[in-house]
Amino acid sequence: MTQTHEPVRIVGMSGSLRKDSFNTATLRAAIELAPQGMTLDTVEIGNLPLYNDDIRQAGYPPTVESFRAKLTKADAILFVTPEYNYSIPGVLKNAIDWASRPPNQAFDGKPVGIMGASPGVIGTARAQYHLRQMLVFLNAFPINKPEVMIGQAATRFDAAGRLVDEATRGFIRQHLQALADWTRQLKRA
Amino acid sequence: MTQTHEPVRIVGMSGSLRKDSFNTATLRAAIELAPQGMTLDTVEIGNLPLYNDDIRQAGYPPTVESFRAKLTKADAILFVTPEYNYSIPGVLKNAIDWASRPPNQAFDGKPVGIMGASPGVIGTARAQYHLRQMLVFLNAFPINKPEVMIGQAATRFDAAGRLVDEATRGFIRQHLQALADWTRQLKRA
Amino acid sequence: MTQTHEPVRIVGMSGSLRKDSFNTATLRAAIELAPQGMTLDTVEIGNLPLYNDDIRQAGYPPTVESFRAKLTKADAILFVTPEYNYSIPGVLKNAIDWASRPPNQAFDGKPVGIMGASPGVIGTARAQYHLRQMLVFLNAFPINKPEVMIGQAATRFDAAGRLVDEATRGFIRQHLQALADWTRQLKRA
Amino acid sequence: MTQTHEPVRIVGMSGSLRKDSFNTATLRAAIELAPQGMTLDTVEIGNLPLYNDDIRQAGYPPTVESFRAKLTKADAILFVTPEYNYSIPGVLKNAIDWASRPPNQAFDGKPVGIMGASPGVIGTARAQYHLRQMLVFLNAFPINKPEVMIGQAATRFDAAGRLVDEATRGFIRQHLQALADWTRQLKRA
Repeated sequence: MTQTHEPVRIVGMSGSLRKDSFNTATLRAAIELAPQGMTLDTVEIGNLPLYNDDIRQAGYPPTVESFRAKLTKADAILFVTPEYNYSIPGVLKNAIDWASRPPNQAFDGKPVGIMGASPGVIGTARAQYHLRQMLVFLNAFPINKPEVMIGQAATRFDAAGRLVDEATRGFIRQHLQALADWTRQLKRA
Repeated sequence: MTQTHEPVRIVGMSGSLRKDSFNTATLRAAIELAPQGMTLDTVEIGNLPLYNDDIRQAGYPPTVESFRAKLTKADAILFVTPEYNYSIPGVLKNAIDWASRPPNQAFDGKPVGIMGASPGVIGTARAQYHLRQMLVFLNAFPINKPEVMIGQAATRFDAAGRLVDEATRGFIRQHLQALADWTRQLKRA
Repeated sequence: MTQTHEPVRIVGMSGSLRKDSFNTATLRAAIELAPQGMTLDTVEIGNLPLYNDDIRQAGYPPTVESFRAKLTKADAILFVTPEYNYSIPGVLKNAIDWASRPPNQAFDGKPVGIMGASPGVIGTARAQYHLRQMLVFLNAFPINKPEVMIGQAATRFDAAGRLVDEATRGFIRQHLQALADWTRQLKRA
Repeated sequence: MTQTHEPVRIVGMSGSLRKDSFNTATLRAAIELAPQGMTLDTVEIGNLPLYNDDIRQAGYPPTVESFRAKLTKADAILFVTPEYNYSIPGVLKNAIDWASRPPNQAFDGKPVGIMGASPGVIGTARAQYHLRQMLVFLNAFPINKPEVMIGQAATRFDAAGRLVDEATRGFIRQHLQALADWTRQLKRA
């Protein structure tokens, strides 16, 4: 007995711009661990200008337009975010601010996955709950379980930036499977 | 009987980059309403690059260095923030991310004032509590009362962007006086 | 063309114990405004003991058992909460603490609606985002829109405690309809 | 050269009612580790009724009156809180709700310390930021550093409920010293 699913198309972004970011490495791990039937593409946020509503009124710049278009086409969004100053990075919030503006086709009604990695013990919890509050306004629907908060990140990646901690790989796999299931459930509506 | 105080030097920033921003207009009103014995200078955040820790490691860019230096010299910081997507703007968070990096002389131990203006009823409450959580990490000490949350902003400024609502002007005056008193109290330690 | 739905069974609770509570009055209004195909029953929280895990280990007291059973049978939960000290009342949190304990059949996977009324302008926003964070742990799925935050409550109810403000009645109607739709969507999974 | 300080009188409460609570054990450890010049008394919250404003209007019950009086006399307040459902326990919030009602002499302008212990890794972070938001309304001033979030509590106490982890004892000592200093600073105003 087989059940054929349309593939679930996820677009993921990392909230860190640095080259050796644990979060970008987590996003790479997610691509590797995506379940069958899921495509996981990434989108850059480092080439966006600082949000200025005067610019928006004059017309979305091309990098913004392209960023928004990629999110719009996705069935679901995956955020992989560090925690800076007990919240998400300004860089990631700036990307969300651009994507959220009318028409909000990037997030409205979309399923969302959230992961984060940090050197400390708490593993981006504070950032993730701020992000969840933003998603209320954006009318997006994040999954609840399992939360992926990768603490003490330096111990879980090898020198080449590959996630080697098996328990963490398992959580990412479960999170992505839950996101795929949630996405199919919400699309069926 | 006179009591002579050293002037309290505040540096304020607006979280909005658009020219006719209600928040930038609120910051201008604050300059106008600052009590005797307070100087209130402003600092720009629209010329900062997106935060990238690789750039930081290579050395703070000149606009960042100058931004950080202005905050470092201040006795207290004033944030005037819009609410975007139920949090502070990415632009403002990006500025905080740059200012917070070691050595954190911009915020550590500093008194802080917070104001915000928005077209809606809630008047940036959600953004302000996110900002307050960030200030815990930054070891800054915001005043509690009166909170300045300027709802329905379009009804409180005139066509030239001047704050004309007397009740709101009163709250700003009280907030700045409380910030001046709090700053003197913390300096005395 | 008719489509027959199974009725959606909601259980609602008010976070205020006082007799003339605006929130209890809002819950009564919700019963009156519930769409066809929805049953909305209420459950008391004022007869629960203070949560003490030693008591729980010895066995749920009868009032707790009955409270938990009513939530377990519901398809979805409706919270109507005042804001006390910028969060939900202790009384409501105490009820949630009892209901959440294993086995968590009260909330796990359940759709949730949230309303609140307060005398002030902000209309329980701060309480509602705290509640939403709790729901992540409880693995419940609150709807996002429309948020029902009834500010300046004293102007919207008549002397008998009936909600007379038509705009607010409309929001409640929309919220309940959205909750019914969301509940059907999640049950279909 | 000696400097004589008036003693700083702290009143502390544990947010957990169970007999073998890690948080009550943390409060006991705090008593043991309090610096010279600090008195740390505790106050019970398990004997308070559920908050009901009709009861309050009729007059504070004796247990409430006594609870409020103890807080009023304190120079500073210490909260030791578990995390239930990603927030503070209803029991603790209930105590705060009673103490906060007019006249708010329990918290207004008071310095505050916050600690928490939990079996999990995150160590009550989510509860503590909720508590901090409440303190804005209450016009209390919590210290920022060091935050005391005791994760994996089961590994840090012995069978008799004594905190034996030296690193954690050090954090508590530092937190109490910082609270003593902060209290003296705010009293000097």
